[in-house]
Amino acid sequence: MRIVVLAGGIGGARFLRGLKQAAPDAEITVIGNTGDDIHLFGLKVCPDLDTVMYTLGGGIDEKQGWGRRDETFHLKEELAAYGVGPEWFGLGDRDFATHIVRTQMLGAGFPLSAVTEALCDRWQPGVRLLPMSDDRIETHVAVEVDGEQRAVHFQEYWVRMRASVPALAVVPVGAEQAEPAPGVLEAIAEADIVLFPPSNPVVSIGTILAVPGIREAIAEAAVPVVGLSPIVGGAPVRGMADKVLAAIGVEADAAAVAEHYGSGLVDGWLVDTADAGVVERVESAGIRCRAVPLMMTDVDAAARMAAEALRLAEEVSA
Amino acid sequence: MRIVVLAGGIGGARFLRGLKQAAPDAEITVIGNTGDDIHLFGLKVCPDLDTVMYTLGGGIDEKQGWGRRDETFHLKEELAAYGVGPEWFGLGDRDFATHIVRTQMLGAGFPLSAVTEALCDRWQPGVRLLPMSDDRIETHVAVEVDGEQRAVHFQEYWVRMRASVPALAVVPVGAEQAEPAPGVLEAIAEADIVLFPPSNPVVSIGTILAVPGIREAIAEAAVPVVGLSPIVGGAPVRGMADKVLAAIGVEADAAAVAEHYGSGLVDGWLVDTADAGVVERVESAGIRCRAVPLMMTDVDAAARMAAEALRLAEEVSA
Repeated sequence: MRIVVLAGGIGGARFLRGLKQAAPDAEITVIGNTGDDIHLFGLKVCPDLDTVMYTLGGGIDEKQGWGRRDETFHLKEELAAYGVGPEWFGLGDRDFATHIVRTQMLGAGFPLSAVTEALCDRWQPGVRLLPMSDDRIETHVAVEVDGEQRAVHFQEYWVRMRASVPALAVVPVGAEQAEPAPGVLEAIAEADIVLFPPSNPVVSIGTILAVPGIREAIAEAAVPVVGLSPIVGGAPVRGMADKVLAAIGVEADAAAVAEHYGSGLVDGWLVDTADAGVVERVESAGIRCRAVPLMMTDVDAAARMAAEALRLAEEVSA
Repeated sequence: MRIVVLAGGIGGARFLRGLKQAAPDAEITVIGNTGDDIHLFGLKVCPDLDTVMYTLGGGIDEKQGWGRRDETFHLKEELAAYGVGPEWFGLGDRDFATHIVRTQMLGAGFPLSAVTEALCDRWQPGVRLLPMSDDRIETHVAVEVDGEQRAVHFQEYWVRMRASVPALAVVPVGAEQAEPAPGVLEAIAEADIVLFPPSNPVVSIGTILAVPGIREAIAEAAVPVVGLSPIVGGAPVRGMADKVLAAIGVEADAAAVAEHYGSGLVDGWLVDTADAGVVERVESAGIRCRAVPLMMTDVDAAARMAAEALRLAEEVSA
């Protein structure tokens, strides 16, 4: 069974760990979001790719969900002592190595997809991890600060500002001119199932879908596409998805997210048992819907969610 | 009193610390060797400049004499886990910050002298630290390995090979085309005294003197030039100076090093009390010579050596 998963950071990574447990023999290809990539200290940082890689490779800081376990922050402390920032972005000493290796390889001319493959050679995540594109795409968020509109990098909005002001617009800068990375369209074309984990529908999955060709390939693939709601009981399970959903005029609601994707894209949708009341609304939009527990409290819970998604995929393809 | 000091790494840095104690009111300009600079992991590393900066700024690992105190090596461990080397060069997590800031500033177009000034803004070494040149100069060492001659970077010879094979030649690649950094010739012209600490006469002071204009400026300055022997009792106090001295046909001997510099360059020379027997030989070469304790066992010992050097400078200028 060949499964393609569109993944953001923490939620995507934890779902993938569950999926590997639920479908140990599946060939899993992950199309990772690179819209939140950022250049810091002259280094190329790919937070979502790394979170997937570290989580599946056993190197993640389990508690915070990103970064390396047994991490120290001496380098960052010293950069701050030199007055060199930003200080709000948490890069640990171990994590820096990944960015240094990546930056060196990119500088030597390798595309991000080849670099990611090389990094995964060490981590052995047990999936094929592809960046959505080898081209540079940067998600910017329009905000109003002191009565003036300006665009900030997604990480600045998310990490530094903690999404404390409304997002007026979310723009994946560069996406229009970008191409899917080698292997992305092929993986979708050869997939038996496509899954949208409970990742952010705007800045994670939405950004991946903004790369010309990816949305179309998924919509046209004659295979079940099943998503899991990142919204439970009207609020994001983690992160601040409600803020960026508002920017695109979508309610922070399990059904509204399904409607946003639309029946042209997704065939099945899982909502949490707390949202059982919206099942009918989702189904009336032409999307098969089930209410199951969607809290990834541990790997087993994530595996049960993944198993439910696979079951729904089987159901919609029957 | 304006003092110019040509400095290599550990020996130069420790001597400078003594000099600051011996002459607290002096304006000290340090012309630092950059011939052992190396590019590692895409970063520009300047071991000698950093050793001076860390030592005088209170950040040095006192025991090993280079690198940062309270250092960790997590980043390097991770690079090794990625299979990215070299592993033989010790870069700690705190130390990496210096190289990252330097590399970013160089990438932004600042010359090394401006970058060094910016780094010293944090460390406040109490001296003006100038790289010998803003141009890239790299000391290479010709060696014979398995019957074949090849040139290796000085750091590879020194750190990886531990100078275990004879150095056939030592070449400061790029020196001929280099210019002294801004301020270097001016500092020499305005100096009251020029000192050569017990740094390596070939790969530290010799490399500085290889930058066109520096040797001439020192030789022509009508001020006392006093050096301290890095060789005590026929062996280098630290390091492997004998190996590189052999490459240029100079005996590992306190008098031979003085003769190598020559009376056209140095006016006074300090040898260790263990070498009192060579005083006459050095003086017969036209260089005033004194035998005093030259072991920098602590800061006070270094300060006494510096005071002796200043005394000899006064004597030769009388």
